[in-house]
Amino acid sequence: MNIEKLLKSNYVGYKANVPDLPIKLSRNENPYDIPKEIKEEILNELLNTPWNRYPDGQSLRLRNKLAEFLNLSAENILVGTGSGELIQLVFNGFLEEGDRVILPVPTFPLYEKLLQQRKIEIIKVFLNKEDFSLNFDLLKNYFQYNPKILVITNPNNPTGNFLLKKEDFEKIKDFPGIILIDEAYYEFSGLTFLSHTETFPNVIILRTFSKAFSGAGIRLGYLISNSKIVGYLNNFKLPYNVNVFTQIAGERLIEKWDLLKNRIEIIKRERDRVFEEMQRLKDIKVYPSETNFILFRSKKIYEILKKCEEEGIALRDFSKEPLLENCLRVSIGDRRENDIFIRVLKEVCI
Amino acid sequence: MNIEKLLKSNYVGYKANVPDLPIKLSRNENPYDIPKEIKEEILNELLNTPWNRYPDGQSLRLRNKLAEFLNLSAENILVGTGSGELIQLVFNGFLEEGDRVILPVPTFPLYEKLLQQRKIEIIKVFLNKEDFSLNFDLLKNYFQYNPKILVITNPNNPTGNFLLKKEDFEKIKDFPGIILIDEAYYEFSGLTFLSHTETFPNVIILRTFSKAFSGAGIRLGYLISNSKIVGYLNNFKLPYNVNVFTQIAGERLIEKWDLLKNRIEIIKRERDRVFEEMQRLKDIKVYPSETNFILFRSKKIYEILKKCEEEGIALRDFSKEPLLENCLRVSIGDRRENDIFIRVLKEVCI
Repeated sequence: MNIEKLLKSNYVGYKANVPDLPIKLSRNENPYDIPKEIKEEILNELLNTPWNRYPDGQSLRLRNKLAEFLNLSAENILVGTGSGELIQLVFNGFLEEGDRVILPVPTFPLYEKLLQQRKIEIIKVFLNKEDFSLNFDLLKNYFQYNPKILVITNPNNPTGNFLLKKEDFEKIKDFPGIILIDEAYYEFSGLTFLSHTETFPNVIILRTFSKAFSGAGIRLGYLISNSKIVGYLNNFKLPYNVNVFTQIAGERLIEKWDLLKNRIEIIKRERDRVFEEMQRLKDIKVYPSETNFILFRSKKIYEILKKCEEEGIALRDFSKEPLLENCLRVSIGDRRENDIFIRVLKEVCI
Repeated sequence: MNIEKLLKSNYVGYKANVPDLPIKLSRNENPYDIPKEIKEEILNELLNTPWNRYPDGQSLRLRNKLAEFLNLSAENILVGTGSGELIQLVFNGFLEEGDRVILPVPTFPLYEKLLQQRKIEIIKVFLNKEDFSLNFDLLKNYFQYNPKILVITNPNNPTGNFLLKKEDFEKIKDFPGIILIDEAYYEFSGLTFLSHTETFPNVIILRTFSKAFSGAGIRLGYLISNSKIVGYLNNFKLPYNVNVFTQIAGERLIEKWDLLKNRIEIIKRERDRVFEEMQRLKDIKVYPSETNFILFRSKKIYEILKKCEEEGIALRDFSKEPLLENCLRVSIGDRRENDIFIRVLKEVCI
């Protein structure tokens, strides 16, 4: 039997394609691990939890904790194994083949990848070349084609800037479908549209534990919307999606937020320091960032990548992407890692 | 804005709808938790693993362990957060709207639910009423309609019997699409079609850690097929689907299989004992099982359910499902739990 005919086209999946190097500045992770005492507390609770039983399929304790933390109700919240599962859930819940989705690009590549898996028409709205801002006139022009979802990653990855400032919401409020705002870097940016979920029934917010909460390995994301949408999407999720470990870890990390929060300030200060150092280098154009990473452009990216690799630093290369010619992204590491990165950069771009 | 018009029909999701009672005989879990020493070993490794870093998106160490365990190559294996994610992955990878899937029913309800989420035509092949065997003539009659997937849960849940015996494969080998064989209860049944993945390029096997491995709370399943299909499906999965805990737990549990395996024998002996006790009761028709659960039929199910609930026993009610009128399913618990169940049953069905 020839299985080729069973395969759907030549779809190529999401590949971060990152070299495995000791100084990991390529995936926008938090450079600081969760403190050992907190890990121990979580693992002690996990030790005394049955593993042979299915986890709570509704993750109710975790959702209650999040509700308290966000001053919402558990009915406004869904949790998933990273925001990836939740993006897929929103797409499964609201899209049928032939539907249209508006995606400002360049953005987090997973969106395009998940949409390509099904016959969804992606309306790409290219960001302004100069500063990666969103052209709202261009965007609004597509509203007439009845798009089902508008994706806004805010701040945007990999460009680091806001696509939507507080006052811009006015410009998109007539969007006829779901407005999906991905706030993966909210804890660094400080700007949220969470309160809009109360006023606008078509707004969904996504958040993650992978960045500010130091929990990329835990796989936990959450979705916020009105109870009607949350109840509807709850039907589409896998019955026991979040395992015992992730539920417990999420609950404890929310309790320890005050402790984790201090590290956000350190990372932001480091980001500003790295930014300023980079700005001084004449071969580099550096873009302002509201996140824990910095996008920069240079004619010397191959020298930079080579030298970084020699020094054990992994960066993310976006130079093949539209609008991102000669662009690399560096995640903010700890002080030592950032120092090595700056030193290497200075050696290449005097 | 009226969000009703954004919702896809009145889809109702998977609901096990199980009362929360202390004697859990409703979800086919393993009654024995993972031994504390093994948990401690896993958690100690987890304590010393970074949580701030993304897990290995390819779960390579775990897949290598599984490969060694199954005498295959890691290229033949994909892992997911329970077999649920993998079922969804197969559906995402091979189905487009309008495609047809053959589903012998009654079966594991998640299959139908996931297919209903998209516009897939489900061709239901009703099992023979008497013994829930599969009518191959009826089944083969549908091959002409170009179905993309044939789902065979073997042994079948909730009926407990084989749909496909070794010699039956001959009868379905001309199926023109993917043959998806769900072997969730393989370790109890002893019958596998794993070796067929080498000969037939369209065969996919699903397995889970939720039953024999006592790991329902861990959320780990795996898929076995030829390297071409595995590579293809790998493109469709979420980039970091299996978290740090689940990867480590999976690796260690495979190493400890000899220890866990002994408990399978205990559960099978208990199943046979419960079966024999039930057979003696005149108000009950009990169906033979190759699994860790037993399906039975009785005119007295409401009395049985009521009395079980009073005694703190949760069962699963299938009486509203086609072909399963007056049917309940009991999972095999530990000896004490089974004794209580038998006692209650005897009180109702003298």
